[in-house]
Amino acid sequence: MASTLKDVARRAGVSRSAVSRTFTPGASVSDKMRRRVEKAANELGYRPNFLARSLTTRRTKLIGLVSNNFHNPLFLEVFDLFTRGLQDRGLRPLLVNLTDETDPEHSVQMLRQYSVDGVVVASSTLPPEFAKAFRDAGVPVVHSFGRHSSSPKVHVVGIDNVECGRMAARELVARGYKQVGFLGGPESATSTQDRYQGFMTELAKHPKIRSSYSFADAYSFDAGRREMLRLLKAPRQEAYFCGDDVLSIGALSAVNEAGLAVPGDIGIIGLNDMEMAGWESINLTTIHQPIRQIIDSSVELMAAMLDDPERYPEARLFPCEIVERATLRPREGENAP
Amino acid sequence: MASTLKDVARRAGVSRSAVSRTFTPGASVSDKMRRRVEKAANELGYRPNFLARSLTTRRTKLIGLVSNNFHNPLFLEVFDLFTRGLQDRGLRPLLVNLTDETDPEHSVQMLRQYSVDGVVVASSTLPPEFAKAFRDAGVPVVHSFGRHSSSPKVHVVGIDNVECGRMAARELVARGYKQVGFLGGPESATSTQDRYQGFMTELAKHPKIRSSYSFADAYSFDAGRREMLRLLKAPRQEAYFCGDDVLSIGALSAVNEAGLAVPGDIGIIGLNDMEMAGWESINLTTIHQPIRQIIDSSVELMAAMLDDPERYPEARLFPCEIVERATLRPREGENAP
Repeated sequence: MASTLKDVARRAGVSRSAVSRTFTPGASVSDKMRRRVEKAANELGYRPNFLARSLTTRRTKLIGLVSNNFHNPLFLEVFDLFTRGLQDRGLRPLLVNLTDETDPEHSVQMLRQYSVDGVVVASSTLPPEFAKAFRDAGVPVVHSFGRHSSSPKVHVVGIDNVECGRMAARELVARGYKQVGFLGGPESATSTQDRYQGFMTELAKHPKIRSSYSFADAYSFDAGRREMLRLLKAPRQEAYFCGDDVLSIGALSAVNEAGLAVPGDIGIIGLNDMEMAGWESINLTTIHQPIRQIIDSSVELMAAMLDDPERYPEARLFPCEIVERATLRPREGENAP
Repeated sequence: MASTLKDVARRAGVSRSAVSRTFTPGASVSDKMRRRVEKAANELGYRPNFLARSLTTRRTKLIGLVSNNFHNPLFLEVFDLFTRGLQDRGLRPLLVNLTDETDPEHSVQMLRQYSVDGVVVASSTLPPEFAKAFRDAGVPVVHSFGRHSSSPKVHVVGIDNVECGRMAARELVARGYKQVGFLGGPESATSTQDRYQGFMTELAKHPKIRSSYSFADAYSFDAGRREMLRLLKAPRQEAYFCGDDVLSIGALSAVNEAGLAVPGDIGIIGLNDMEMAGWESINLTTIHQPIRQIIDSSVELMAAMLDDPERYPEARLFPCEIVERATLRPREGENAP
């Protein structure tokens, strides 16, 4: 006969509520109380079952953490911050790898089977249909790093990628580059489309500057390197805005292999400011995306939706800024750093 | 009134078993049948609940995927392979970040609340006590990248780190280095201890070779860079065996910053052969750890334990091999590559 919460409370000489709190992730209980309850629970072989309890509370505290890019080192930081943020609130991430998935309905069914309380789509490349499919299925959803919208259909937390494209173009213009290129991520990604649009819109103000564009087939080192090797076979631009940091690092590798120097022969600017961008051997000039703030805010929003699933959708937007390192030449009128 | 599996079977005109298989992860069902069942389920608003079902089957198909190193890009590959491997078998990874956790009992309680069917500890730095605590709690556990043992107490899948240390030493000796150093990972990690022991045991056969050792405080770029910068302030060795690839990449960065050349001034050999080690700009000579095979085997073993939780513990061992790239000088008698 399995012991119950009541048995544990009697043996420990505490209230049933104290036992319950001890075994509820995120609930407040003193260390002394916790030790006392855990001792009694161990002696009785009591095992709280969170999932059984979920049948009455209708809460599993499981959150689907959905992503599709496991070849971009940025996502190790993303998973670190999401898992810690969710754990700190007593929530548990069910990690879902959609690398080979194209059908939003299939993902919805997969996660419904686990009665997740909510889903975080952490991706700038999964189409918006994935987040919408979860919403339509009645699952609270936050799309982190999704496309910013002034009339959001689901909760979106991220940056204005159009503005980032403009920012990159302004920076290249300010540094006197006359021929510039956009080396984007996959053309189907909204982040690529928006960065491209902002970049070209800003350049249109400077009719004497020549520009070109092309796309890598993934946000990955190999894709960035391959695309830059291809670009170097034709007359090259003076500087490139690469779709993100990992593409930039691949492009830098291609430039080095071709015996060219950065920023002497070619300038490169990235986007994200992931940990590796600051490594001394890379030292990439880039646009800082506030990853930590976006993830903290996403977790906060998810927690709020668990209390109010009907919460009106909102788009949360975080500003980005240039981080100057060593892959662009100095601004006009300045000396080299 | 919620629809039942029986309602769906009637509406789709198929057997109840066909409906059940459609909603069982990993179960076999034709695409045609799946579409038919899903159509009927959608029309009726039927939602299979895997966790409710687990109360009768006593299976949740949830597997705790426990790790503690989110600053080593190797782990992005590890998470990619584990999530895909588990998903392919209809299992679901609950990702647990133990970066700040020191108490095995606390982790056990956290995962018991979720009635996980099993736990994979994916770490060479978490003490063996974590895997043992899960075993003692009656949870099937596989320790991937754990310490190899000839009398395993829990299932361990990985490499012989002592042999890897020997292999690194033999390689440096064969290339004529007379002064060599071990730049290890955290001293408390069994992987560090074993690699150190193998390295020194092999060098003891060559009394004329001088050696030194030191430890970085984590398997991370920053820790490797910091430790190598410190080493370069004193008379340096001709070559270093770094505890793993990310430490090697940090060390390479420090060497470059100091204006020294690899392999001209200093040789470096790593361990793991992670994706980044092959990047053209890094091109690290290293010891290949068969990550994919270790993870495939770990998932296979976990699946087998779900069928037979009393399965006798085994240690599965995979061979490693040197991958020659550009960070060691040629072997004696050979020309530069």
